[in-house]
This record gives sequence, structure tokens and C-alpha cells, in this order.
Amino acid sequence: MLEGRAPEGQLGHYPLERLKRVDKPTTYVGPNVQRVSEHDSGFLKLRRGEYGPRLKAGGSRSVSKEPVGAAIAQMIRGLREMTPVDVYPNLAPIPKDPAAQSRHIKGLGYFLRADCIGICELPQYAVYASDGDERPIELDHKYAIVFLIDQGWRTFNGALGSDWISGAQSMKSYSTSGFIATVVANYIRRLGYEAEPHFSGHYKVLMPPLVMLSGLGEMSRFGGTILNPFLGPRFKTSAVTTNLPLEPDKPIDFGLQHYCQVCKKCARECPSQAIPYSDEMIIYNDYETYELDVEACTRMRVGNPAGAMCGRCIKVCPWNKPYEGIHKLVEWTLERVSLSHRFSVWMDDLLGYGRQNIEDKWWYDLEEVEGIFQVPEKVGAVVKSSPLAQKKEVLAVEEDDSE
Amino acid sequence: MLEGRAPEGQLGHYPLERLKRVDKPTTYVGPNVQRVSEHDSGFLKLRRGEYGPRLKAGGSRSVSKEPVGAAIAQMIRGLREMTPVDVYPNLAPIPKDPAAQSRHIKGLGYFLRADCIGICELPQYAVYASDGDERPIELDHKYAIVFLIDQGWRTFNGALGSDWISGAQSMKSYSTSGFIATVVANYIRRLGYEAEPHFSGHYKVLMPPLVMLSGLGEMSRFGGTILNPFLGPRFKTSAVTTNLPLEPDKPIDFGLQHYCQVCKKCARECPSQAIPYSDEMIIYNDYETYELDVEACTRMRVGNPAGAMCGRCIKVCPWNKPYEGIHKLVEWTLERVSLSHRFSVWMDDLLGYGRQNIEDKWWYDLEEVEGIFQVPEKVGAVVKSSPLAQKKEVLAVEEDDSE
Repeated sequence: MLEGRAPEGQLGHYPLERLKRVDKPTTYVGPNVQRVSEHDSGFLKLRRGEYGPRLKAGGSRSVSKEPVGAAIAQMIRGLREMTPVDVYPNLAPIPKDPAAQSRHIKGLGYFLRADCIGICELPQYAVYASDGDERPIELDHKYAIVFLIDQGWRTFNGALGSDWISGAQSMKSYSTSGFIATVVANYIRRLGYEAEPHFSGHYKVLMPPLVMLSGLGEMSRFGGTILNPFLGPRFKTSAVTTNLPLEPDKPIDFGLQHYCQVCKKCARECPSQAIPYSDEMIIYNDYETYELDVEACTRMRVGNPAGAMCGRCIKVCPWNKPYEGIHKLVEWTLERVSLSHRFSVWMDDLLGYGRQNIEDKWWYDLEEVEGIFQVPEKVGAVVKSSPLAQKKEVLAVEEDDSE
Repeated sequence: MLEGRAPEGQLGHYPLERLKRVDKPTTYVGPNVQRVSEHDSGFLKLRRGEYGPRLKAGGSRSVSKEPVGAAIAQMIRGLREMTPVDVYPNLAPIPKDPAAQSRHIKGLGYFLRADCIGICELPQYAVYASDGDERPIELDHKYAIVFLIDQGWRTFNGALGSDWISGAQSMKSYSTSGFIATVVANYIRRLGYEAEPHFSGHYKVLMPPLVMLSGLGEMSRFGGTILNPFLGPRFKTSAVTTNLPLEPDKPIDFGLQHYCQVCKKCARECPSQAIPYSDEMIIYNDYETYELDVEACTRMRVGNPAGAMCGRCIKVCPWNKPYEGIHKLVEWTLERVSLSHRFSVWMDDLLGYGRQNIEDKWWYDLEEVEGIFQVPEKVGAVVKSSPLAQKKEVLAVEEDDSE
């Protein structure tokens, strides 16, 4: 339960407070990371037609062609249109102690049903240099509060990750985390401090470095994606940047770097083969990452003829498990004993994790074509050679990305 | 976890499917229940000045004088302003089986993180005859889908129920359930069926009969409030009314009628003594209820000088427990063995349930007066004679309702 009793000192549902903390992220982040423009993101390149006309057309409907995703995306647009309250001219009479403020704001976020919350100082390289229309962005807030919302284990259990509910899974966590960030920002503004919410379609900041710096995860093999020890990669994020004095958290080390080196299950299962198999990370913009083929990933997500978007890597990641019983123990072991990593990956396949369990499929596969919903021909892009694609009920199809 | 693994056949976090089902609610609902006007509700009487000028002035700031409640109330106003999507002219190609549709819609609601979901036929008496401005309301939808959102056990554990976070506790569940109802209504409209969301400040229907009829609770001693076996009274609700063919749930019987007869803890603890001590229910508008003093309750909530609103009855109810470990077993027993009820109430006091546990108090007591936040003089209205008010750290004050 999100809001039930917790062990002493634990603020939320997950024992973030018990993780091993380190002074720097477990992957290199150098002194010369440059600010980037949102204009250069894969999705905006696609919208401008840089990946061809078919995908440009697909971009605008990649989520909204499916009715659950469309209904939730409508809420995110509504959130973006809400007018923030003016920053109050007087500071509220609250303690000035940053540690107390951090506990206070986390208490608020968990009350609002966030799944994990972390706080970091906001480095300027995490602020976009300019937005999608190349308008410069300036943001001098000192801190970032980061909110994670689970996409839901059960729906992933019933899904292929690359099928028709995939976009809705993202949108659900984008909208829920955006809702929380909007409340928290408006609350802090009432206290008399500057604060801005950042969420899907409304980000002035890049989330991956903030998730890493605030101690909510480590860099994973699917480059740019940060993985959390309790939710795996099964979450989306929002943030509030603010000048309210806060005590930052430290980055975490739960052994993921060795795990991602040996596992490679995401690379094996990626329908667009966008995730590298390499043993080594690269240095890009003075930080360490795996070299994701961003164009192939974006093409797959937007052009997916067998679903709405794609999160197949999230589905099959061995860290995507319900947080309960045996899995708590397994996570504890994985975090501490790197020898167990190879065994864990082997067992994960053997036990059938990453398969679709149709009893948890609550949605209908539907595709809107010119205002009318149709039952789509193809359901879920998976790699034919995958050991997970052998069972007939999976309804697997090879992804067809030819233009 | 809201979205973790569940026993077979259980759709959400709580085992609603295992409750004893009955053909009619456990309290009498006759054939002559008349539709009522929202205009006659306590809050609207108060806003018109029928409870005096001080409370009329208090009505507009009863939630918003506290900054967390104010920030969340802002979201509810935003939800009300969102434009629904037009009902699609074509029906989506989905199975016509009402049982399958009910499972489907519940799957969607739980995916969106609702805590409990029930479905009933919509009786006309549950539709307001007219709104707050006495404009007639017509709504011929056949079904209602009801969503419950937990107000959060942990915050109640740190609170008195009648203190400064009280309004925010309501608003959090109103906004979250309103968000879900808005998504679900827009989804169903995309499928080609009429659907409307109902949530705080945006209700065309009365929620208590719908919560009861959809099998989510029984009538409790705090008249008009329905109590759920897993959340107790610690929730707020929203609904979607629709013509999508659905299979209704049946009402439940978990033994609450005998429990409320013997317990009376809410009556003992109510700061405005608005809850009756009587052994007998009354018949009002051809349905059975306890005779709540609505005016006293409304005066307390809006005029509370020691907090923002009031939910002291929710705080002290023995059914307000975290759903875990021993409490699961206790609930199971209470539902089945009415002899255990007196013992349970006695034990509840003895074990200190209903007390404030200050380690879970994450918020600051703040009151906005003319645009500036102040530390309020009084924190939490409690009955001085109560055994729960003896501990000094509780900061208890007698509620002062004199005009």
C-alpha cells in the first residue's frame, strides 16, 4: 500500500533510505557536460519530418490512436493549461532547516501518492538550453524535487510492452506525476518561494540526470534511461525546481552497472534492435552512457504498426518485478552480490519472466483510423528469435519498419 | 502496492470479490425515496448565509486558508474546466458482454490507481433534482461506476482529524478520484457511449447511495457516510455515469450495522457532537440512516477555529486502520463474528487507536489571513473529556463554535 505503515525512518512505500549512498553517480559525469536543446530530441526531429513523411504523420497519433492513451493524454494537455498561482510576496513562517524542509516536501509528495521521491541540486547542464521552438530557456532554481510514478506491474504483466496499451502506460505515469508536481509547485509558491513544475510536454529540465543525482536510480543499458531498484525501469517522472532551501539526497549504488554489463536481455528483446550489446559504455557529451540508436528507437515507437508506442525494454527487464515477498529478497541479494547477476538473468528466462500473462490483459486492442476504431491486425512487435516469442498465445508479429 | 500481484480473480488491491454479497443494502431503502436538490445541502445553505454571516465568510476559505488544501483545490477547479471529448458517432468494436465490460472498466480504473471500484444501476433518486442554482438536472444514464480513493492512513495517523491538514486530506482524494473519473468518462465517450464524470463540485449524482449499491460499503453511524471494510470511512469518491452496458455489483454485508450500534466512538469524539448516540436509526426520505445534526457538522467544519475543515469521525473510527498483517485478520473476524464487536471497540481504545502519532506529522500548521500565512493559535478541535485527549503533546483545544 502506498500510504500504509512503514518501518521507522522510511518516508514512502519503498525503503529508499536503506540503499547504499555514494558521493557521485556510479557512471562518469564530467565537468564539461553541455546544455542541450529540446529541439534536438528524437521526437521533435521526427515531428519536423527528419525521419521521413510516414513517421512525421505517425508522430501526431502515436499515442492518441489508442483510446486509453488518448483519454489520458487529454489530461496532460489540461495540466499544461492550468495557470500557476502567483508566488506569495511573504515567506510563510516555517522552519528554515533544509533537512526539515526536505522531509516536509517528501511527506507532501507521498501524501499525494508519489511512488519514490528524491531531491538534488539542479545542475545547469540539466536545464534545456532552448525549447522545441529554439527559444532560449533560463532557470536559476537551486534544487530539483523528483517524483517517480510506477507504470503498474500488473498491466505490464498482461502486456508485451510493444502492444496497444504501451502508450497509455507511459501517459498514466506522465499524467499522475505531472499532477503531483503541479500541486507541489503551487504549494511552494504559496509559501513564498519560486517553484515550477516539469512534466511531459512541459519540461524545462532533462529528467535522467536529475533522477540519478537525486538517488532514485542508476544509468541502465537502455541509454539515457535510469533504472530504480524497486520499480526497475517501469516508471515516468516529473520534477519541481525551486529555491525553497532543501537538503539534497545522494546518488545510489545498487550494483546495476555490473548487472547491465552481463544481462543484455533488453538488447536481445528490443524489436528495433536499438539497444547496444556492447560490453563498454561510451562517453557522450562528457558523461558515460550506453550508445542507444535513438533514431531506431524513435522510429519503432512512433511507427509501430502493431501497437501504440513501445516499452518492450521495460517489459523484459529483470528488474521489472512486483515489490513483494521473494522479489524483495532477490533484490536485496542482487544489490549486494555481483556474482549472482549471471545466475539471476538465467533464472529470469527460465522462470518465464518477460512473457505476457494474458489473464492480466484488461484492455482491448483498438486503433483509431480516421475517427473510427478498428481491431488492429497486428498486436505487439517482438523479435521472432526471442525465447519469449515461442508461445502461440503471445500473438507475436515481427515489427515491420519498412517505409 | 496498488498495482502488484493479486490473488486470482481479485481485480484491485483489496479483496472486494471475497466479501459477502446481498441482494439489498443492509439498511432499508424504500420505494419512495425522493430526489433532492444540491441547493439544500449544508454547504450551500451556509454559503447563502443561512447559518449566519461569520460562517458564510468562512465557507469560501474553509479549505483554502491552509496551503496544501488550497494547492489541491486549485487542481479540482482545473479538472472542472476541462472540456470533455465529444461522444464518438460510431461504437468501437468491443465485446457486448456486460460482465466483460465491467471487468474491463475496473481494469482501467485500477490501472489509473483507484483504490476500490464498484458498479451499480443508477437509480433516479440518486440524481440531484436540481443544482446549487436550482437549475433542473436530468440524467438518464443506466449505470454508475464508483471510484474510491484512500485519504491515506499515514497522514491520518499523524493528525487529529480536526486540525489544519484535514481539508487537504479530503481534497487529495476528491482531486485524485476526479482525475480518474474524467479519464474514464473520456475513454468511454471515445468508445461511442455517453458518459459523464462526477466529482467534487461537479456532481449531478449523490454519492452515498451509489457507494452502497455498488457494493463498496454500508451506511455508518455518521449519517450519510458509507463505510468500506478495507478503508473504513477514510476515502472520497467520484463516479462515471454511462450507457455503456455493464454488469452491476451487489451490495455488501460485512457486519457494520451491529458494529455501529455498539461502538459509538465517533459520537463520543465528534467535536461538534453532531453524531447521534442513539441505538436506533431513523427513516428519512424513505431510507434508513442515523440522524446526523447536519447543521452542527457543517458549522464545525467551516467554522473550525483550530483547523481547516474536520474529519475527526474518520480519524477515530476503529475501521480506519492500515490494511496489513494483524488488521487483515481482525477485519476478517469482525466481518464474521458479531460477538467480537464490543471487544474490538474496547481494545481499540486500550491500544491507543485514534491518538495522534506525531512522528507521522509531515505538514506545518499554517493559516492564511489576508494573504499572509500565520502560525495558528489553536491546533485541532477535540472533545476535552475524551480519553484520547489526555496526552499533552496532542495540543488539544476545545472547539469554540460561539458566534
